[in-house]
Amino acid sequence: VIIVVCLNPALDVTHHVPVVHLGEVHRPTGVYSRPGGKGLNVARVLHSLGADVLLMGLVGGTTGVAVATAIAQLGLPAACTPIDGETRRTFTVVDGAGEATLFNEAGPEVSQPEFAAFRGQYVNALAGAAAVVLSGSLPPGLAAGAYAGLIEAAAVAGVPAVLDTHGDALLLGAAAGPAIVKPNLAELEHLSGRRLSAPDGQRPDRTAVTAATARLRDIGAQAVVASLGADGLLAATGDGHWHARPQSAVSGNATGAGDAVAAALAHGLVLGRPWDERLRHAAALGAASVAAPVAGEFSHADYVSALSGVAVHQEEAR
Amino acid sequence: VIIVVCLNPALDVTHHVPVVHLGEVHRPTGVYSRPGGKGLNVARVLHSLGADVLLMGLVGGTTGVAVATAIAQLGLPAACTPIDGETRRTFTVVDGAGEATLFNEAGPEVSQPEFAAFRGQYVNALAGAAAVVLSGSLPPGLAAGAYAGLIEAAAVAGVPAVLDTHGDALLLGAAAGPAIVKPNLAELEHLSGRRLSAPDGQRPDRTAVTAATARLRDIGAQAVVASLGADGLLAATGDGHWHARPQSAVSGNATGAGDAVAAALAHGLVLGRPWDERLRHAAALGAASVAAPVAGEFSHADYVSALSGVAVHQEEAR
Repeated sequence: VIIVVCLNPALDVTHHVPVVHLGEVHRPTGVYSRPGGKGLNVARVLHSLGADVLLMGLVGGTTGVAVATAIAQLGLPAACTPIDGETRRTFTVVDGAGEATLFNEAGPEVSQPEFAAFRGQYVNALAGAAAVVLSGSLPPGLAAGAYAGLIEAAAVAGVPAVLDTHGDALLLGAAAGPAIVKPNLAELEHLSGRRLSAPDGQRPDRTAVTAATARLRDIGAQAVVASLGADGLLAATGDGHWHARPQSAVSGNATGAGDAVAAALAHGLVLGRPWDERLRHAAALGAASVAAPVAGEFSHADYVSALSGVAVHQEEAR
Repeated sequence: VIIVVCLNPALDVTHHVPVVHLGEVHRPTGVYSRPGGKGLNVARVLHSLGADVLLMGLVGGTTGVAVATAIAQLGLPAACTPIDGETRRTFTVVDGAGEATLFNEAGPEVSQPEFAAFRGQYVNALAGAAAVVLSGSLPPGLAAGAYAGLIEAAAVAGVPAVLDTHGDALLLGAAAGPAIVKPNLAELEHLSGRRLSAPDGQRPDRTAVTAATARLRDIGAQAVVASLGADGLLAATGDGHWHARPQSAVSGNATGAGDAVAAALAHGLVLGRPWDERLRHAAALGAASVAAPVAGEFSHADYVSALSGVAVHQEEAR
């Protein structure tokens, strides 16, 4: 089983309105509500791929009940630890032109006894797990080293970890030696403290990105896969460096594409795919996810058709 | 007991953000969640006034659980009928300048058997009730005559009704002969099919407003109390016409002021206050409600201090 840790799940509410007029009253023409959070998207993608998955998270309050109910309706195996705080909501308003405005609540304050209860369940589940994915932001109340501790517990049990988070949680988590960390360009920029996009265009500065991924490996990550949007994936591993690029830029919903990549990397890890194949599948699944309207979903036809178009090149180590 | 009917309650979620940038991601600095809907506000105000109140409504889904839980936490006596649909949310974004942008979901589809179950509970509760207040919009699935039927059932039980709604539900409800209907200027404009504000300024055209209230009485309402915002209340009753005006315009949160007025009118009706006193209390409570930050709440000190400032004039019948 692949354990997916989602410590800060959300109820994602989306309203469709023709036009947003600030200061006025709107009557949405469409209302959608679904369980969200990066870990939840990862778990949904793995479940769709046919992987044996177990979602482990913290849920609380009536919003937590809504999230747990929706997870059960999706048929997603889950073991959620109850907390006193109220699970967060995200609220997205999409106008007729497709422009999305987001309002993301921070999440509930999690107490130390609550996290200890979660950790106990998690350690029990590690026995027999093939991999663990730790994904998304930490809720308030948890130390920045929370993921690092979970990665260390996985290492003790011999279970490789894939980490997708940002800021100090990413730095401390990388130091715990996960098998793969998957930062995106914004996360690498935050770590580097400088802009990594080339000043004259859209393409990221490859040399600077490579330096940032090398830094994460120096800190302790066994491999780093940077997701660069339309420019694909750049992998720095103990076996070499690769660049995987989908055939053509896909327009659509980029939310959740990174989660699809993280899911594919964990799946490839568990299946023992070599790095070039692992990256081909991850880039294809990311592209298929962009084409799907909802984060955490993708069409298998899009996935299969994207697979053959991904170009994977091994690069010189730097 | 005063029965307050709230067929379309809501979970009101408010996010405070410094500035709204359309197309971007916001992290709210404040998140508030409370049970809402006009009937709920009326019930809260009556409960604060010390009146014996029973909230009767329809709740469904996990949002319905959230609303019912919050009602219980407020200590508000309630008898809610469960429905299959999901209780609606309203979502308000307030920026640093206090500008509010609202996104109001329509509410769940209510089936005929569900409404029949509600109606059965309601008819049972009418035995011994002193008054009934019917407030707010009807959820999808209910006929525009739903309030009219509930008013007729109250009349059969000898219970006077106060109606605060809009459109066809107001017209058909007025025809059922309620003791009081309480339209605001927008509702009277909708009924008249024309603008009632005077073209040269803020003050509503009193003659046109009086004609619109007369029309509601002709249709069947025993009394009409029009709430005109800062211009106070205009009452057309079988005992005469009155105008009640608070001493000074209060700036603040107008949402819920009409609900405070409806609550005060029902309270005055049950206490047997003469019309001038009933209107004095209603205007004062409306002003106190505007001064409070949250609909359904008010400070008793504001209410008492507003009372002495309300000017009530009896007017010539027209």
